[in-house]
Amino acid sequence: MLPVKGRSELPAIKLLTEAELRKIVHLDLAAVDCVERAFASLAQGGVVMPPILSMAIPDYNGEVDVKTAYVPGVESFAIKMSPGFFDNPKFGLPSTSGLMILFSARTGMVEALLLDNGYLTDIRTAAAGAVAAKHLAPENARTACILGAGMQAKLQLQALCLVRPIEKVSYWARDIAKAEATAREMAQLLGIEANPTARLEEAVAEADVIVTTTPSAEPLIKGRWLRAGQHVTAMGSDQHHKNELEPACLDLADLYVPDRQSQTELLGELHHAISTGFVSGETRFDELGDIVAGKAVGRKRPEDLTICDLTGTGVQDTAIATFARQQAETAGAGTHFDT
Amino acid sequence: MLPVKGRSELPAIKLLTEAELRKIVHLDLAAVDCVERAFASLAQGGVVMPPILSMAIPDYNGEVDVKTAYVPGVESFAIKMSPGFFDNPKFGLPSTSGLMILFSARTGMVEALLLDNGYLTDIRTAAAGAVAAKHLAPENARTACILGAGMQAKLQLQALCLVRPIEKVSYWARDIAKAEATAREMAQLLGIEANPTARLEEAVAEADVIVTTTPSAEPLIKGRWLRAGQHVTAMGSDQHHKNELEPACLDLADLYVPDRQSQTELLGELHHAISTGFVSGETRFDELGDIVAGKAVGRKRPEDLTICDLTGTGVQDTAIATFARQQAETAGAGTHFDT
Repeated sequence: MLPVKGRSELPAIKLLTEAELRKIVHLDLAAVDCVERAFASLAQGGVVMPPILSMAIPDYNGEVDVKTAYVPGVESFAIKMSPGFFDNPKFGLPSTSGLMILFSARTGMVEALLLDNGYLTDIRTAAAGAVAAKHLAPENARTACILGAGMQAKLQLQALCLVRPIEKVSYWARDIAKAEATAREMAQLLGIEANPTARLEEAVAEADVIVTTTPSAEPLIKGRWLRAGQHVTAMGSDQHHKNELEPACLDLADLYVPDRQSQTELLGELHHAISTGFVSGETRFDELGDIVAGKAVGRKRPEDLTICDLTGTGVQDTAIATFARQQAETAGAGTHFDT
Repeated sequence: MLPVKGRSELPAIKLLTEAELRKIVHLDLAAVDCVERAFASLAQGGVVMPPILSMAIPDYNGEVDVKTAYVPGVESFAIKMSPGFFDNPKFGLPSTSGLMILFSARTGMVEALLLDNGYLTDIRTAAAGAVAAKHLAPENARTACILGAGMQAKLQLQALCLVRPIEKVSYWARDIAKAEATAREMAQLLGIEANPTARLEEAVAEADVIVTTTPSAEPLIKGRWLRAGQHVTAMGSDQHHKNELEPACLDLADLYVPDRQSQTELLGELHHAISTGFVSGETRFDELGDIVAGKAVGRKRPEDLTICDLTGTGVQDTAIATFARQQAETAGAGTHFDT
């Protein structure tokens, strides 16, 4: 064999565990701000965000997605690996896990291993919901309706409460017992009125803001249920077959905003609106980043019906990972080691 | 914030550094065997190998590739990240680096972090050269010509010597001083005759086996230089614009073997042979894995001219990463930690 080449010149690598990351990164306005700036960068030139690498492992009902993005002016880029193995709960394991790696954008050297088991994804995904609501939801939104009862159903409400004066929320889920448990937990955590509901149409009609967080493959919300002055964030769909909004909803909306149109037309609600002919495949929409960057206008009138379609972008991962590393440096968290 | 969910049920993660990996994984017949079995698995059903995720960072003359593959019967899959930043030598850093992550194929949980800085890629890439030579090079190959003078120029010769009785090698490189240094190093390491050469045509004519390891974007080997009974492994091209063999070479060969045709028609020598019309885009070739698995025949006659086109496959990464983990377990190497 060749003699071992000395690599002592390589910089040390920072390792952060989920437990450490949970202490230093929270769903707060600082995290929202970091994700908001990531969206703004998407509207500027020079961002490189390749298509998502996706591998299905049908033998074990699993899949893994890999996302990345380079953002000019950000000194690092993240590669995020998100496995989802949907039989895991049978073995007492969470369905989703994963990690992020931070690389120097100047040299490609590994800078940090963020062993977050999906925690940073949870945060950056919820933060995008806050960004959407900040620019699109009615200023005085006081009532919300959340579809789903899982992690994002909880975090999206917390995110919404960071930017709007929510006082009352209804939770709807296929399993009403889960909606009850989530509503109870949120009432306690946020000190607001939170109720489970089996009457989705009524709960949607009452809400100023509706957030869909399910993996549904059939539309849950009908166009005729929506009314003037509402905002809908649909964040559950991130795969071709998923669909939470009846395609007519997009046609009815005064403003439809994708996080990244090249993704929503494949993986989001837009996909189904195009395939059913409610939206032309030629239509170009202003993206959330265009609105954040001031290149386009968000909600224009109180009576507008707005929809935001979130599929999750690599720039959010690069943003939250660099934010986490920065927080870790401030807090002196994590361990360093040489390779 | 939500209360921290206990994740103590998650399995511990093994961490292996480059220094540790260099002690337990070598370019030997065990590594070649592991990569050979990976190619055989490609010829069987059930392998999932998505297209390579590739991101260019033109601001810093960099790129990063991500590869992965699921192989039925292998308990883990690897995701490999390979950055290449070609201005790094100016800063005293290697151009290529990177790492591999091993995940459970049953649950998606992270099992091991292999911080190899590209070392395992070097080994699995060279091992593929040995597999190609084993099945395609003439049995009694005694002379070799290597194009290039970098890491793979060295490792490909070592790989070749594992499977063929090489006695003499010529090194050609654009920079003859580098060819001289590499030839000197290899003569000493392997105890064979090794010479630099500026006369590529002559060196090619003399060689039983030719291995191209350069990043050239212009063909270096002309079709009329090749003769009956030779074997050529072209492993330098792994990008659309790279090209080491004149397209006519593929037409002249009695047998052309891609590692994975879906990759070589985009990234390898086949790409240029198709675009110049020397090979029809409709032609289906038996792949290296088909030959290893016994579904197709390699070299049939001593006088055959054979060409193998290697672009690097995700199954090699999954194979070498699981091999490395196994070696580490046997040797008791690496550290474990909880997230």
